[in-house]
Amino acid sequence: MPQFNDTELTAAVIQSFKETPNPRAKFLLQELVKSLHDYVRRTDLTFEEWEYAIDFLTRTGHKCTDIRQEFILLSDVLGVSMLVDAVNHRDRDGATETTVLGPFYVGEHKVTPDGTDISATLPGERLYVQARVTDLDGKPVAGAPVDVWHADDDGFYDSQKPSYATQGPSSRARFITGDDGRFHFRTILPCSYPIPTDGPVGEMIMQTRRHPMRPAHIHFLVAAKGYEPLITHVFMEGDKYLDSDVVFGVKDELVAKIEKRTDPVMPDGTKTSEPWHLMTYDFRIKPGEGAPPAPLGVKAEKVGEDA
Amino acid sequence: MPQFNDTELTAAVIQSFKETPNPRAKFLLQELVKSLHDYVRRTDLTFEEWEYAIDFLTRTGHKCTDIRQEFILLSDVLGVSMLVDAVNHRDRDGATETTVLGPFYVGEHKVTPDGTDISATLPGERLYVQARVTDLDGKPVAGAPVDVWHADDDGFYDSQKPSYATQGPSSRARFITGDDGRFHFRTILPCSYPIPTDGPVGEMIMQTRRHPMRPAHIHFLVAAKGYEPLITHVFMEGDKYLDSDVVFGVKDELVAKIEKRTDPVMPDGTKTSEPWHLMTYDFRIKPGEGAPPAPLGVKAEKVGEDA
Repeated sequence: MPQFNDTELTAAVIQSFKETPNPRAKFLLQELVKSLHDYVRRTDLTFEEWEYAIDFLTRTGHKCTDIRQEFILLSDVLGVSMLVDAVNHRDRDGATETTVLGPFYVGEHKVTPDGTDISATLPGERLYVQARVTDLDGKPVAGAPVDVWHADDDGFYDSQKPSYATQGPSSRARFITGDDGRFHFRTILPCSYPIPTDGPVGEMIMQTRRHPMRPAHIHFLVAAKGYEPLITHVFMEGDKYLDSDVVFGVKDELVAKIEKRTDPVMPDGTKTSEPWHLMTYDFRIKPGEGAPPAPLGVKAEKVGEDA
Repeated sequence: MPQFNDTELTAAVIQSFKETPNPRAKFLLQELVKSLHDYVRRTDLTFEEWEYAIDFLTRTGHKCTDIRQEFILLSDVLGVSMLVDAVNHRDRDGATETTVLGPFYVGEHKVTPDGTDISATLPGERLYVQARVTDLDGKPVAGAPVDVWHADDDGFYDSQKPSYATQGPSSRARFITGDDGRFHFRTILPCSYPIPTDGPVGEMIMQTRRHPMRPAHIHFLVAAKGYEPLITHVFMEGDKYLDSDVVFGVKDELVAKIEKRTDPVMPDGTKTSEPWHLMTYDFRIKPGEGAPPAPLGVKAEKVGEDA
């Protein structure tokens, strides 16, 4: 007959997973039990706190839909997403640093001609982006697909807006690098924006007196054949939230210098009557393999299947 | 500008909670960050595994309704619920051992006359329960309310069945102890039953080759004024799952001897023509305070509020 003290209980739970057929799953579950039990023991967690945790997780689950992922947001603001990124990219060999994919990637974008203005209908200061993809030796990588996406002037991604279904993507495109590894496009200057604060994760951020802001950035996903997919952001120099990104995603080398320009012709000959900004960035990718990520969302079922 | 290696990242996330007004919340969150980060680092968690975890938590959340709590079930099968119980009841002073409340407590029961058959309409072998509540010195505690609930012969609690709303409670009642601290009731012999296996938690149990069974038991909640509320079960001696309860809830002293009887008159004079079982159990409660637990369920909102 079992009669467990704290430690025996933990050992019994670990032991209960001993027949798990997949050795990695067995390891992950047994380590999870150790971590959870250690946490409860170390904090002397009360019943009320345990109940709060159950309720918090439940509300977080209920906030998830096929266009919103509150658990990823939770992982992001606890630095878990960036840590998973870090332990999986320990050795960069000079390749561009990685950062979180974020919850707004919607899967492979539509190929768009080089030089397109991907935010032509949106208000905002105009930005000209000139970029290049090279290998670790600095040699251009031609024909590399590069997915690009960023938030609008109000801090929303196209996929967050009701118009997305009917009007299609904006501030979101795929470019293919030329023989010189280069691509360029026009858009609006992204601005810093808050993560959603109308769910349990946002509430937690506000209750703990953290701010909910991400510094302005553009997402890039470079997925060239024969190379490791590169998932990263480029941040705008000078943003006031660079030092305190709510999801801890900033890295030094991912911050691009943004030049304010007033000349009436952009590098590709586009004429402009208003001041504009120039961003220049080079991506270095490393040989390897791996599929580009699937869009993150709710799989397997819909909200309220049991309701 | 931040540029975090693994360790600096963890320190930065811990630091981000430094302004949390409530010191206990601050401590719990900072320790949570340590535990989660330590887990990711120790396991070198891959992106695919992280995605699996996000999806598992999301499905667990979506399975929760106001009559089903899949996160409590998860806590139960990982031994977390019993550990929270253990760290909050380190010093029993001779009082009866505690165990998990479980997800089927529905709040204060309706007072029922001593001796009632609380499963009169249900099939099953008949059980006569005679019990007593005393203090730590063995002195009877009179007028103590005792909530009782257990599963039926098919392994379901009344609250799990569609008939609950119209027909009201069965195998569920509240008795008040007499001047001698005693109460008794008739019911059916509970049987072992599986936790629900149609959700992510049950799937995990099956995939890891654990069995989903709980040994037969009756829940008791003794909430006498001036005493610490006692939340416990009494298990049926001889059950084949006593050594491997899927929620790790069994303790030696909570296993009651069950006598098989064939005499035609029960201790209170009730006549019977079939064999029956006799369970005798004494509860010892300790001075203290504390409200009896609230029923566990979904608070604050309903499933699919965002859908």
